[in-house]
Amino acid sequence: MRLGLDIGGTKIEGVALNGQGEVIRRLRQPTVPGADGVITGINDAVAQLTGDRQEPAASLGIGIPGQIDATGGRVRHAVNLQLEDLDLREALAPLGIPVRVENDVKAAALGAYTAHTPQAESMAYLNIGTGVAAGIVIDGKLLRGQEGVAGEIGHFSIDQQGTPCACGQRGCIETFTGGGAVSRAWGGTGQLPLAEIFEAAEAGEPRAFELREGMGRGISAAVQLLVLSMDVSAVLLGGGVTALGSRLEETVHRHLERMAADSPFIRSLNLTERVDILPAGTFLAPLGAAQIAEESSWN
Amino acid sequence: MRLGLDIGGTKIEGVALNGQGEVIRRLRQPTVPGADGVITGINDAVAQLTGDRQEPAASLGIGIPGQIDATGGRVRHAVNLQLEDLDLREALAPLGIPVRVENDVKAAALGAYTAHTPQAESMAYLNIGTGVAAGIVIDGKLLRGQEGVAGEIGHFSIDQQGTPCACGQRGCIETFTGGGAVSRAWGGTGQLPLAEIFEAAEAGEPRAFELREGMGRGISAAVQLLVLSMDVSAVLLGGGVTALGSRLEETVHRHLERMAADSPFIRSLNLTERVDILPAGTFLAPLGAAQIAEESSWN
Repeated sequence: MRLGLDIGGTKIEGVALNGQGEVIRRLRQPTVPGADGVITGINDAVAQLTGDRQEPAASLGIGIPGQIDATGGRVRHAVNLQLEDLDLREALAPLGIPVRVENDVKAAALGAYTAHTPQAESMAYLNIGTGVAAGIVIDGKLLRGQEGVAGEIGHFSIDQQGTPCACGQRGCIETFTGGGAVSRAWGGTGQLPLAEIFEAAEAGEPRAFELREGMGRGISAAVQLLVLSMDVSAVLLGGGVTALGSRLEETVHRHLERMAADSPFIRSLNLTERVDILPAGTFLAPLGAAQIAEESSWN
Repeated sequence: MRLGLDIGGTKIEGVALNGQGEVIRRLRQPTVPGADGVITGINDAVAQLTGDRQEPAASLGIGIPGQIDATGGRVRHAVNLQLEDLDLREALAPLGIPVRVENDVKAAALGAYTAHTPQAESMAYLNIGTGVAAGIVIDGKLLRGQEGVAGEIGHFSIDQQGTPCACGQRGCIETFTGGGAVSRAWGGTGQLPLAEIFEAAEAGEPRAFELREGMGRGISAAVQLLVLSMDVSAVLLGGGVTALGSRLEETVHRHLERMAADSPFIRSLNLTERVDILPAGTFLAPLGAAQIAEESSWN
């Protein structure tokens, strides 16, 4: 049995896989931020997932926001979890299970690949949450790159005169379509600012219209960037912002089709056909985390 | 013995490699455009490279501009060579040697990887000639993607209001730094418009200054795009425009350093350290073409 956990800002999701890679148990529990809270939460999750089984799990993979070190054991700068620097592998050594830690978006990418495009030579999972980043799978293997930065396309600027980004640049893709940046730009007080923006845009409110179209522009630029750089067969959209569902999809398709209308070259890429919004609540991140623990490319 | 040829708009370059992958013979001859001229040129080059050897070559790899079909035998849209559609493998069947055709930038990327960064997990060769495109090598293997489009980042737009590009979009990276687009924008009559632009920029001519800085912006955006998407360890610059040498390098470094000054995240990527201009005349493209013919990933 192999275990996978995804440690999010509000909840921990977990799966247990059998030897055939099938999900045999699922779990969802609230996250308690801080090192102690996270470690206790992981231990609880592992206990529940292994349950009454006699044999210990063969491996534990953990997806978590932040930067992961080259050994795949330590996480840094997981701001939402209040973790500045935590050696998770060391902290979890008492479990007696091999532990691998991976960035949460990269883990989700591997899960999305396995669940949705297992035949694809290459695919990208574009996570549109508070921030924007992609995870990329090529030949069934997660692309990490020299510093584990591969996929951080949310900080590519598409407008030098654009809105300042938290990263210090202007007009990053994330300023157009990250849930955090767009909600701040809207400044509403509602619980669901993005849904509010889309409703106001449909009602003709000019600022909402501009923000919605900006989201379409940002996501379509991200899709184009992923296809022009790596020619991925599929770009699967996930993350909190995709809860907008068909309204978001319609906006993205419209922008991709406008690009295609202007350019025979872009048209030949069939970008619209490569894009899909992933269904919510599919445990892709813990599934990918479980797979990461057995990935041959580690160490 | 394995053979590699690069069919350029003005010249054919070729190499013969021995069993250890060492170059044992080189060749350079003028290109004659059109299907007959190209096929005759290839046959002549093969005859010269095999020379007085008794045994036939084990393989022939050909780098050529244009789109290559999925079987690696046929080229389309090689505009500079006046080839609309040519099945090179079929045309060269009388040679009795296995033939593989690849896009010239991709072939050069493999040659640059082998000659300059053989230890790198991943690298990109950024070709800045008349147009702009990259070839990408990951884990020693050329990245092609679903339609062979991987690396076509010259047509990513970084300025929605920018100069119209031949592809139909506006503000593509190629409009900033492609030799064709920049020369047209300058409109000079000299043989070396780019050198002229750099000299006029140094003398304070405003339009030349703007064009030079645009080149810096376009190349630094391409470098950033390649690192944020794939986190390549190295971006090696080649192609006709790089004949500008240290003047171009200085401009690119200045732009990369400005990006880094604005953003701690970009600073952490050490972009300047990842970029190098390749020395001219190193036969990288035919070297890569020779390797492509034996690459396991084909077919």
